[in-house]
Amino acid sequence: MSFLSVGTVAFDAIETPFDKVDRIVGGSATYISLAASYFYKNQQMVSVVGEDFPQEMIQNFQSRGIDTEGLQIKKGEKSFFWSGRYHADMNSRDTLITDLNVLADFDPILPEAYTNAEYVMLGNVAPALQNKVLDQMKERPKLVMLDTMNFWMEPQFLPELQRVISRIDVLTINDGEARQLTGEYSLVRAAKKVAEMGPKYLIIKKGEHGALLFDNSNKVFFAPALPLEEVFDPTGAGDTFAGGLMGYLAASGDLSFSNMKRGIIYGSAMASFCVEKFGPNRLLELTEEDIAARLQSFINLVQVDITLS
Amino acid sequence: MSFLSVGTVAFDAIETPFDKVDRIVGGSATYISLAASYFYKNQQMVSVVGEDFPQEMIQNFQSRGIDTEGLQIKKGEKSFFWSGRYHADMNSRDTLITDLNVLADFDPILPEAYTNAEYVMLGNVAPALQNKVLDQMKERPKLVMLDTMNFWMEPQFLPELQRVISRIDVLTINDGEARQLTGEYSLVRAAKKVAEMGPKYLIIKKGEHGALLFDNSNKVFFAPALPLEEVFDPTGAGDTFAGGLMGYLAASGDLSFSNMKRGIIYGSAMASFCVEKFGPNRLLELTEEDIAARLQSFINLVQVDITLS
Repeated sequence: MSFLSVGTVAFDAIETPFDKVDRIVGGSATYISLAASYFYKNQQMVSVVGEDFPQEMIQNFQSRGIDTEGLQIKKGEKSFFWSGRYHADMNSRDTLITDLNVLADFDPILPEAYTNAEYVMLGNVAPALQNKVLDQMKERPKLVMLDTMNFWMEPQFLPELQRVISRIDVLTINDGEARQLTGEYSLVRAAKKVAEMGPKYLIIKKGEHGALLFDNSNKVFFAPALPLEEVFDPTGAGDTFAGGLMGYLAASGDLSFSNMKRGIIYGSAMASFCVEKFGPNRLLELTEEDIAARLQSFINLVQVDITLS
Repeated sequence: MSFLSVGTVAFDAIETPFDKVDRIVGGSATYISLAASYFYKNQQMVSVVGEDFPQEMIQNFQSRGIDTEGLQIKKGEKSFFWSGRYHADMNSRDTLITDLNVLADFDPILPEAYTNAEYVMLGNVAPALQNKVLDQMKERPKLVMLDTMNFWMEPQFLPELQRVISRIDVLTINDGEARQLTGEYSLVRAAKKVAEMGPKYLIIKKGEHGALLFDNSNKVFFAPALPLEEVFDPTGAGDTFAGGLMGYLAASGDLSFSNMKRGIIYGSAMASFCVEKFGPNRLLELTEEDIAARLQSFINLVQVDITLS
């Protein structure tokens, strides 16, 4: 039993209308595995960093049950660096710098012990790399979830993306990406087209507007986002959502629609913490009580008693 | 006991990416009172039409328990006419024609029997007219709900708008309008500022993203919108939402936060019907079974069982 996550581990520089930070640990695999660690300890991480990456953070990962044998450390090289600036609405951002560094020739090699992972989260990297990870699995994992983005839906990447989508169980994308991928404006119709591509479940992330879960038999569930007084830094919220969801699913071992719904509330709760501080800082300090109280807020938010005659 | 609605009764011409209609009955008071009529019969309508307005529609109103003594019919004049074209996303539209006609000098005079109404819905007309309606009430109604729009938030109308907002119980606006009215991007902060302006409740309508209810003690409720395979014509959905909500509240006589939540689900269900056909057509043919089934869909959409230890 293990949960394998593949993605980036990086440095970010982030500027919001309120504050800025010049260098903070980021990357999709960072957010995914930190969020999942609150629910599931037996984790494996596949990524790549440079010699500049802080040893303390790697030890922090390990202390949370995240095995780092698959985290390649490239001597004499620099970690992936991303810099972005958020607009006043905190929903859109400009990328200022993307220094691929070690990511330029990232080869996601799975240590032998990882090739039997039952739960696999393929973070947003090139679809060819996502396929390469699945190629190395000894058995079909119990659950594979994939995150991707509009960039990989361009014609030169699309065939590889479609191939990996045909091999997974859960696809997570935002509403714009769902529309781009399927050519359907209606998200209900988009969900039907995604089901035809292979995945059993589609999760459409709508940021401050919540998330929709569709299964391949037209069942639908809506999870709200918690209205927050202040969004401090949205970086990593989508990956945190995915990590919380996957950690919950791996811990419960239940892949039913009912349990997917619960997992999405767990993921939403973790994402609502993520945005409260810069980078993954808030994810490093949560308690079980914090999480239970936040879950209760999500339950209360949509709770209504209606008796139909 | 009565429910008074004030707004427009008009003709619309509507063009969507799928179809068009050159002349169909519309107007905020039309949608409000038709939606409310499924829950509450003792209605009163204050509006104005021209001699061109079909007598059959007036009889249809009356057959649904909507008193039309307050519906002024101006001999030799034409009804208000609005023409609009929806964009491909169905969320935005261009206004092509606005012929005010009888609306240009609309004077909302309340028949004597209306001045004791307990429930009052002030549809989106000039704030000065909304104030004039309240001036005519013999007693403070049990509940006054007001709808308005960004146009009335311009400097020349704002003082009158602020004055009417200070006299009401429930304000319904969309998210952009809430931000414009308060200068706060965070909807949580915007809600606090609206509470300081007077209303006990604020409802923020987010269209396909649902609706938020805030009370003046920081309680919050989120009602989703039903993901639909096809939105045929969104015209009137916001007024239908308000009408369904007010009809439900008037019928139940319960203004607690818990009952406001129920009312918002009823309003959302009615709005989800409205968009299925051109204009108010769908609102003319619903059965109790249709409504009960739709309410169940809304309940199911957010239903999740989580046991917190």
